[in-house]
Amino acid sequence: MQCPMMQNQRAGRRAAKAASQQSVASMRVGGRVCALRASVGRKAASAAQVASRAVSVKVNAIATIERPAGPAPTSSGGGAGTRVMIIGGDGYCGWATALHLSARGYEVCIVDNLCRRQFDLTLGLDTLTPIATIHDRVRKWAEVSGKYISLQIGDICDWEFLSQAFTSFQPEHVVHFGEQRSAPYSMIDRQKAVFTQTNNVVGTLNVLFAIKELKPDCHLVKLGTMGEYGTPNIDIEEGYLTVTHNGRTDTLPYPKQGNSFYHLSKIHDSTNMLFTCKAWKVAATDLNQGVVYGVRTEETMADPMLINRYDYDGIFGTALNRFVVQAAVGHPLTVYGKGGQTRGFLDIRDTVRCIQIAIDNPAARGEMRVFNQFTEQFSVNQLAEIVNREGRKLGLDVVVQNVPNPRVEAEEHYYNAKHTKLVELGLQPHLLADSMIDSLLDFAVQYRDRVRMELIKPAVDWRKTGVKVNTMGAAVAK
Amino acid sequence: MQCPMMQNQRAGRRAAKAASQQSVASMRVGGRVCALRASVGRKAASAAQVASRAVSVKVNAIATIERPAGPAPTSSGGGAGTRVMIIGGDGYCGWATALHLSARGYEVCIVDNLCRRQFDLTLGLDTLTPIATIHDRVRKWAEVSGKYISLQIGDICDWEFLSQAFTSFQPEHVVHFGEQRSAPYSMIDRQKAVFTQTNNVVGTLNVLFAIKELKPDCHLVKLGTMGEYGTPNIDIEEGYLTVTHNGRTDTLPYPKQGNSFYHLSKIHDSTNMLFTCKAWKVAATDLNQGVVYGVRTEETMADPMLINRYDYDGIFGTALNRFVVQAAVGHPLTVYGKGGQTRGFLDIRDTVRCIQIAIDNPAARGEMRVFNQFTEQFSVNQLAEIVNREGRKLGLDVVVQNVPNPRVEAEEHYYNAKHTKLVELGLQPHLLADSMIDSLLDFAVQYRDRVRMELIKPAVDWRKTGVKVNTMGAAVAK
Repeated sequence: MQCPMMQNQRAGRRAAKAASQQSVASMRVGGRVCALRASVGRKAASAAQVASRAVSVKVNAIATIERPAGPAPTSSGGGAGTRVMIIGGDGYCGWATALHLSARGYEVCIVDNLCRRQFDLTLGLDTLTPIATIHDRVRKWAEVSGKYISLQIGDICDWEFLSQAFTSFQPEHVVHFGEQRSAPYSMIDRQKAVFTQTNNVVGTLNVLFAIKELKPDCHLVKLGTMGEYGTPNIDIEEGYLTVTHNGRTDTLPYPKQGNSFYHLSKIHDSTNMLFTCKAWKVAATDLNQGVVYGVRTEETMADPMLINRYDYDGIFGTALNRFVVQAAVGHPLTVYGKGGQTRGFLDIRDTVRCIQIAIDNPAARGEMRVFNQFTEQFSVNQLAEIVNREGRKLGLDVVVQNVPNPRVEAEEHYYNAKHTKLVELGLQPHLLADSMIDSLLDFAVQYRDRVRMELIKPAVDWRKTGVKVNTMGAAVAK
Repeated sequence: MQCPMMQNQRAGRRAAKAASQQSVASMRVGGRVCALRASVGRKAASAAQVASRAVSVKVNAIATIERPAGPAPTSSGGGAGTRVMIIGGDGYCGWATALHLSARGYEVCIVDNLCRRQFDLTLGLDTLTPIATIHDRVRKWAEVSGKYISLQIGDICDWEFLSQAFTSFQPEHVVHFGEQRSAPYSMIDRQKAVFTQTNNVVGTLNVLFAIKELKPDCHLVKLGTMGEYGTPNIDIEEGYLTVTHNGRTDTLPYPKQGNSFYHLSKIHDSTNMLFTCKAWKVAATDLNQGVVYGVRTEETMADPMLINRYDYDGIFGTALNRFVVQAAVGHPLTVYGKGGQTRGFLDIRDTVRCIQIAIDNPAARGEMRVFNQFTEQFSVNQLAEIVNREGRKLGLDVVVQNVPNPRVEAEEHYYNAKHTKLVELGLQPHLLADSMIDSLLDFAVQYRDRVRMELIKPAVDWRKTGVKVNTMGAAVAK
């Protein structure tokens, strides 16, 4: 009797073959069609080499994929066959989201200019995990799942490209992760500050114009950041604040205070989006996401070639992921300043669910809806304590070290941010229980031979952002 | 006995000659030195031709200039010899400000890329008044006043140019008017929306970096707009709002809601500036200016070649100036929609005083100070009524016409904006008394032969902003 897993595998291969034929026509680079068939053999080989570097990874391919599973889509949107364009779909959150939605029957198109990989090349950084090329990723996904993800390689700041991508794919939802997303990167030098703001603002403007002109019913799911709010001395609400002032009352956009050129760029996006929702009746959901941690999702663990990126360096690594790697390799956990900085956090498995929830329950035309997308808030000291405790249980020698804060930010402050709207729509959070840290630590230990110690330390000082173009690559941290 | 005016004139010519020699070295285009001497004769001739088109203008040259007059500078800054860079110094507010400060002994450098003139060329628009080239303007100013204004022609988005301008001039204050300043222009098409936001945001970012890296003590006086606040249902404060929410209180940036890509760009600027004041201790004054009206200032009326621009077209013409021209030529006053839109207004003679006050009383290092720069608020209907009444007194046949509103904005709303800080620092407003309208109407009547009727109507519809590049010039209003 044939095992159901093997049946799945065969069906997957048939689909992959069909998908592969289809992909020759639909893969585009900067708007130009590229014939990929000739190079498939070579690329597959090199991907296999990459994957083989992933020493001692326990892979449980296919079996872990539930196909079209997950909660039933609501009648208001989403569900099998729904066309979702994921801009930035080759990135950390984007890739996990693309697979999550594809596995559940959504018709996914990834749009990406691969600039995140280019940043690593330029700065001499690397993900902890060995990631395959985006072409190999989608090819492997088709093989593993039988689901086809289409791919449009190009820059959304290039209107000619973006308009063609929109016209050909006709998205019902656009999930927009496609921005330069590192605060330290935006603070390296003037050029990178200007790049971050123009890239992010112009990209989003183009997406808004694309929706208005080419697909007015398309729902925009835009990734903002909790960092747009800064650290006010009052409760943080979800996007808007009702104010009574001199006896009159209005509900206004929540006052924003960004602490890097990156965070500021997302404030600019939100401000632009609100206007287009009013003027053009765009339907938009702005997801003010907290700090994402974790790396495993069901789908990205289905095959080594599907593994997600994991950043631990001083520029792209976020607090918890960085601490976990530091613990794994015996590097002190680098707490910036006093460590009282408190932020919202969420598991990457909740990121992908939140996006699905936003799609399944879209904003109305003309609505600029804001959700705060995180599940728990912690101070940096609390995170370090948890990693310290759990690391010691695994026999790791964990030291916590307070280093001078390279950022300009309040290190002791009030923080109470609301985050109920996604829960009301059905989010069931994965909380940062000890078991999560434990498995994340275990994961980091598996890959610790790939850790490059020189990349861990703080790399960019907010006070020293200069006009001299920093050409030193990884040596930005001197 | 020689008349003092003639002495002034001779001194002026000597200074002009010296200035002219100096200018060969200091005039730059995009960072490259240009030898201008060869073309001076030809340019002067063409400027004279331009000036000669100004039929029936009563000119009272030189005599109207009070030199170094005005209130004595305070000890906290400003005054004779103070080095002020005026970015956008060839524009409507910038030119008047440059002359006002120069006349009072400030050392003025105009930085401009002349894009405002390029917009007119491209769109087929023209100022009501015949304006001379910037080179002829500063040359004539030297001749008339004996004061030398230096000139750096280039784009502040070009860092190489801006850094050289900063390094060579060493400004103590930068007055930044250098932005694309028309809401309708920003709404013509996608390209112009993107241009407006990148030009304005990147230019201001570069200025902030120039201050941080090249002249950290330099005080930034940045022109914002009252339009950043939108039309909230509560009182508008000057930049910040103290909020009590769930029992806690904080003073936060006033919530912003722009109604065009232009207004939004100024919100982005303010948001960026606040961060750099915190992170880098930049000293900044953000002047949220209302709608400016009028054209005469003491200095710009001193010679026909110094006359300021006056825009009445559907793209760059602002409400009151446009109504006055409409009344002068017998065109109905075009009130957009219901006309209940209420805004803050000020006389250009107050604009120049406000800038001087901001310079003489600079912000402290690390301070992001916001002043609301207007003197009175009116609804569009009120303005039309005043122009109607005063026009009839002059025998003009004035008709008020409500036309479909090309903008997306509230046409009936609460509006109460504070504007006390500049008055507290010494501003004595020129109010829009009947006499002001009267003299402005008289001025428009003098120039009415130059009015091009086809430019008056609303030119850009907010709902129709498209992605197709609009190449029709003045015919954008179809």
